[in-house]
Amino acid sequence: MHEQKTVAASRCIMTEMVLPNDTNNLGNMMGGRLMYLMDICAAISAQRHTNQVCVTAAVDSVEFESPIHHGEIVVIEGQVNRTFRTSLEIELNVWAENAIARTRRKCNRAYYTFVAINEERRPVQVPPIVPESEQEIASYEAAARRRELRLVIAGRLPLKDARLIKEDIIGTLTHQHRDE
Amino acid sequence: MHEQKTVAASRCIMTEMVLPNDTNNLGNMMGGRLMYLMDICAAISAQRHTNQVCVTAAVDSVEFESPIHHGEIVVIEGQVNRTFRTSLEIELNVWAENAIARTRRKCNRAYYTFVAINEERRPVQVPPIVPESEQEIASYEAAARRRELRLVIAGRLPLKDARLIKEDIIGTLTHQHRDE
Amino acid sequence: MHEQKTVAASRCIMTEMVLPNDTNNLGNMMGGRLMYLMDICAAISAQRHTNQVCVTAAVDSVEFESPIHHGEIVVIEGQVNRTFRTSLEIELNVWAENAIARTRRKCNRAYYTFVAINEERRPVQVPPIVPESEQEIASYEAAARRRELRLVIAGRLPLKDARLIKEDIIGTLTHQHRDE
Amino acid sequence: MHEQKTVAASRCIMTEMVLPNDTNNLGNMMGGRLMYLMDICAAISAQRHTNQVCVTAAVDSVEFESPIHHGEIVVIEGQVNRTFRTSLEIELNVWAENAIARTRRKCNRAYYTFVAINEERRPVQVPPIVPESEQEIASYEAAARRRELRLVIAGRLPLKDARLIKEDIIGTLTHQHRDE
Amino acid sequence: MHEQKTVAASRCIMTEMVLPNDTNNLGNMMGGRLMYLMDICAAISAQRHTNQVCVTAAVDSVEFESPIHHGEIVVIEGQVNRTFRTSLEIELNVWAENAIARTRRKCNRAYYTFVAINEERRPVQVPPIVPESEQEIASYEAAARRRELRLVIAGRLPLKDARLIKEDIIGTLTHQHRDE
Amino acid sequence: MHEQKTVAASRCIMTEMVLPNDTNNLGNMMGGRLMYLMDICAAISAQRHTNQVCVTAAVDSVEFESPIHHGEIVVIEGQVNRTFRTSLEIELNVWAENAIARTRRKCNRAYYTFVAINEERRPVQVPPIVPESEQEIASYEAAARRRELRLVIAGRLPLKDARLIKEDIIGTLTHQHRDE
Repeated sequence: MHEQKTVAASRCIMTEMVLPNDTNNLGNMMGGRLMYLMDICAAISAQRHTNQVCVTAAVDSVEFESPIHHGEIVVIEGQVNRTFRTSLEIELNVWAENAIARTRRKCNRAYYTFVAINEERRPVQVPPIVPESEQEIASYEAAARRRELRLVIAGRLPLKDARLIKEDIIGTLTHQHRDE
Repeated sequence: MHEQKTVAASRCIMTEMVLPNDTNNLGNMMGGRLMYLMDICAAISAQRHTNQVCVTAAVDSVEFESPIHHGEIVVIEGQVNRTFRTSLEIELNVWAENAIARTRRKCNRAYYTFVAINEERRPVQVPPIVPESEQEIASYEAAARRRELRLVIAGRLPLKDARLIKEDIIGTLTHQHRDE
Repeated sequence: MHEQKTVAASRCIMTEMVLPNDTNNLGNMMGGRLMYLMDICAAISAQRHTNQVCVTAAVDSVEFESPIHHGEIVVIEGQVNRTFRTSLEIELNVWAENAIARTRRKCNRAYYTFVAINEERRPVQVPPIVPESEQEIASYEAAARRRELRLVIAGRLPLKDARLIKEDIIGTLTHQHRDE
Repeated sequence: MHEQKTVAASRCIMTEMVLPNDTNNLGNMMGGRLMYLMDICAAISAQRHTNQVCVTAAVDSVEFESPIHHGEIVVIEGQVNRTFRTSLEIELNVWAENAIARTRRKCNRAYYTFVAINEERRPVQVPPIVPESEQEIASYEAAARRRELRLVIAGRLPLKDARLIKEDIIGTLTHQHRDE
Repeated sequence: MHEQKTVAASRCIMTEMVLPNDTNNLGNMMGGRLMYLMDICAAISAQRHTNQVCVTAAVDSVEFESPIHHGEIVVIEGQVNRTFRTSLEIELNVWAENAIARTRRKCNRAYYTFVAINEERRPVQVPPIVPESEQEIASYEAAARRRELRLVIAGRLPLKDARLIKEDIIGTLTHQHRDE
Repeated sequence: MHEQKTVAASRCIMTEMVLPNDTNNLGNMMGGRLMYLMDICAAISAQRHTNQVCVTAAVDSVEFESPIHHGEIVVIEGQVNRTFRTSLEIELNVWAENAIARTRRKCNRAYYTFVAINEERRPVQVPPIVPESEQEIASYEAAARRRELRLVIAGRLPLKDARLIKEDIIGTLTHQHRDE
C-alpha cells in the first residue's frame, strides 16, 4: 500500500539574488530567466513528491506583473497541488524583495505540469497526494478544472466533454444573460 | 506618418546546441532552459519590430511534446503576429534536430506578449504591423482572440464582454448541442 | 529608536539542483561551487537583517563531510546569529537530498562574517539582533567566542586579551590535567 | 551512391543578444566570446552537412572591425563552402544590429575548418558538397586556395608545391614589376 | 619506490579577469566566487602532486581583506604544503591587480585540505612531498600544527592530545603571564 | 620619458580545468571555448603592458592539433611579442595536462592583435616593449613579418609594398627554382 503523501512534503523554497547576467539592457530580470528558475523549483517539488525523475510537460499561461531589478532577491515557492495518473500539477508563487528599500511584492503565480518517467523515458504512475488544509483542498479542486482546460486547449478533449468547464461557462453565461 | 512594418521584418531565427548544463539527470533539455531561449528570441523579434526596449508581459500556456537531448540542435523561430496599443504578440516555433540521426521534429509552439517601455519603464505606443501572406493574416486574426482570452484569464475583462470568445463558445456549444 | 529585529526575520532557505557543470570528473559537486552558493545565501540573510549592502569579510573553517552528486538537491539555510558594531555572523547549514533514493543527509555547517557598507564602501553600523528561542540564545553566546577566535587567528587580538577563549582553554587544560 | 548535398542544406543562422557577462570593462563584447559563438555555429553547419560529429581543426585569421555593445543583437550565419577528404571549410559571417538605433553593420568574416570523427575520434570521410549559385561556386574555388595557404602556413606543404598560391603570387609579382 | 616529489611540481598559477556576473550590486567580486576559483586552483595543485582525483575535505578560515572590483585581474597561486596519509594541505595566495592604475595588492591567504580518492570514492594513500627551500620547510612544519587545530575544531582530537598546539598555548600563556 | 617595459612584465599564466559545459558530445573541449580563454589571457597580457583598456583587433590562424578532454587541465601562457603604434601582438601557447595519466602535450600556438583604446573608444599610443633574451628578440623580428602578412591579407597593404614578405618569397622561390 502507498504511504499517504502530503502537500507540505512536496514544498520547495528557492531564494536567489538577481545577478547582472540575469538582466536586460534596463537592468530588469528577463522573464525567461525567471521561468528557468521556476522550472527547477517545480522539478524539485515534483521529485520530492514522486521520488522519480520528472520532466516538464506543460506550463500554464504566466503574467509578469512586476519587474524585478538587478540586486533584488527572488523567492520562489513550489508545491504539488494535485496528482493525476502519470502527471502532477505544481503551483509556483514568486515574490521579489528589495532588502535595502524594505519592500516585498508578489510577482507571479504559475502552474507547471510534470510527468514522472522511468529510465526508458516512459511515463510511470505517480503516488496520490492528500490535501489537508482548506486552502490545499481548494487548490486540489481547482487543479482538476485547469487540467480540463489544458486538454481542451491542446485539442485532446472536445469542449463538449469538458464537464467542469462546461458547467462553469454555462453558469457564467446564464448569470450574465440574467444580469443584462 | 509611421512606415509600414511587415511581419517578415520582425522574424528571428535562433540555433543552439544543447550543452551538458542545459540538461537534467537523464540528459534531456530542461523545459525552463528552453523557455529562457524562447524568451530571448521573442525579445529580439519584439525589438526588431518596435525599435524600443521590450519586456516580457505574459507567456501563454506551452506544451512540451518531444524531449530534446544533449548534443541535439534546437531551432527557435520568432515573429510578431499582431500589435496592440503598447503590447505585441510574438509567436515562437521550436524544432529539435538530430544531425547524426538525420531527424527533425516539431517540439513547441508558444505565444509571448511583450510590452514596449521607455527609460522610466513606462509602457509606450508601438508601431502597427501589416500582415501580408494568408498565413500571417490568419495569425493576426487569431491573436485578437488569444488576447481576449488572456484578459479574461487575468480577470481584467469580464467573460460577457469578451466578444470574440463568446461568439466562439456559443457557436461551439450550439453545434455540440445540435450534434448530441 | 531601532525596531527589534529577530533571527527568524533574517532566515534564508535556498534549494538548488546539482547540474553537470557544478561537478568534477567523478560527478561530485565541487566544494568551491557549494561555498559560492553558501556565500549568496549568507549575503541574503545579512541584507534581510541590515537592509544594507553587505560584503563577505571572513569565512570560518568548513568541513565537507558528505559528497553531493549530480542530480541531487542541495538545501542551504542561513540565519544571522549575532551582530557586532559593523559586522554580523551568519550560520549556514547544508543538507543534500536524493529524492529518488529518499535520503537526506547533513553535509556542512559554516559561519560567514559579513560587513555592512555604504556607497563609499565604508563599514556602517548594523541594527542589533534579538535572539528569542533557547537555541538562538545559545548560538548568540557561541558567536562571541568565535569572534574572539577569529580576531586571535587574524592577529588582531593578543591571546592574553581574548577573555572568553582564555577561560575555555584554562578550564579545558585544568580539567585535562586533573583527568590525567 | 551518396545523395547530392547542397550548400543551402548546411546553412545555420544564430541570433544572440549581448548580455553583461559577454562584455569587457567598456561594455564591448569580448572577441573570444564572439569566437565561441562562431565555433558553435560552424559546428552545427558541419554536422548538418556530414551527419557526423565534427570538431574544430583550424580557424583562419579573423579581424574584428566593429565593436559590438551590451544589448546589441549578434547575427552569425554559417555555411559549408567546400569539403575535402575528412575535413570541410565553413564560412561564417557576423553582423551586429542595434534595434533601437535601427542600424545593422558587418563585423567579421571567418573561415573555420572542421574534421568529421567517429567514436574512436578517428577522422572519417565526409560526403561531397555541390555548390549551385555563382556565389557558391566562387566560394568553392576560393576554398581550395585557402586550404593550400593553411597547409603552407602549417608547414605541411612546401611553398613550391602549392600550385594555386604560386600561380597567384607569380602573377601578382609579375604584374607589380611591370607596374613599377 | 616512490619518486621524490617537490613542492614546485605542485604549483598552479591561475589568472582571471573579474567579469560582471562575478560581482554584487556595488561591482565588488563576491567572496563565494573567489572561493570557487580558489577551490579549482587547489584541486589542480592536489592532482598535480598526487596524480589521483582529489576532492575538497576542508577549508580553513579565510579573511577577505581587500575588495576586488569589476575589470580587475585576480591571480591565485596554489601549492601543496604537506601531505598526510590520504590527505594534503594546499596553500593559496590571492592578489588583485589593477592594470590601469598599476596597483597590485595581496587579498587572501587560505589553506584547503583535499583527499585523494579512487573510483569507488574511497580515500587512497598519497605520495609524500619533499620541501626544499627554507620557506617550504617552514610551511611544512606549520601545516602539522594547522592539521592538529583542524582535528581539535572538528572534535576528532581531544585538545589534551594535540601535542603541538598544547606546547604553543602553554608557551604563549606562560609568556603572557610573565609579561603581565 | 617612457620607462623601459620588458616582455617578462607582460607575461600571463592561466590554468583551467575542463568542465562538462566546455565540451561537445564526445567530451572534447570545444575549440571556441579554448579561443575564449585565450582571448582573456591575451587581454590580460595586453593590459599589463599598456596599462590601458585593450580590445581584440585580430586573431591569426590557429590550428587545433590535440583534442583536450573533460577533466584535463589547460595551461595558457601569454606574452607581448612586439608593439606597434596603437596595437600590439600577443603570443599564446597552450598545453593540456592529464594529471592522472601524467602526460602534458602542446596543443596550440596563436597570435592575437590587440588595440589600446581610451574612454571614447579611440585607439591610443602604446608604450614600446624591449625584448631581452635571444628568443624574445627572434619573436620581436618575426612579429613584424606577421604584421605585414595581416595587412596584406586584410587588403590594407599592397603585396608589392610588403617589403619583408616580398624578400622572403623571392628568396624562397629563387631557392626553390634553383633546387628544381
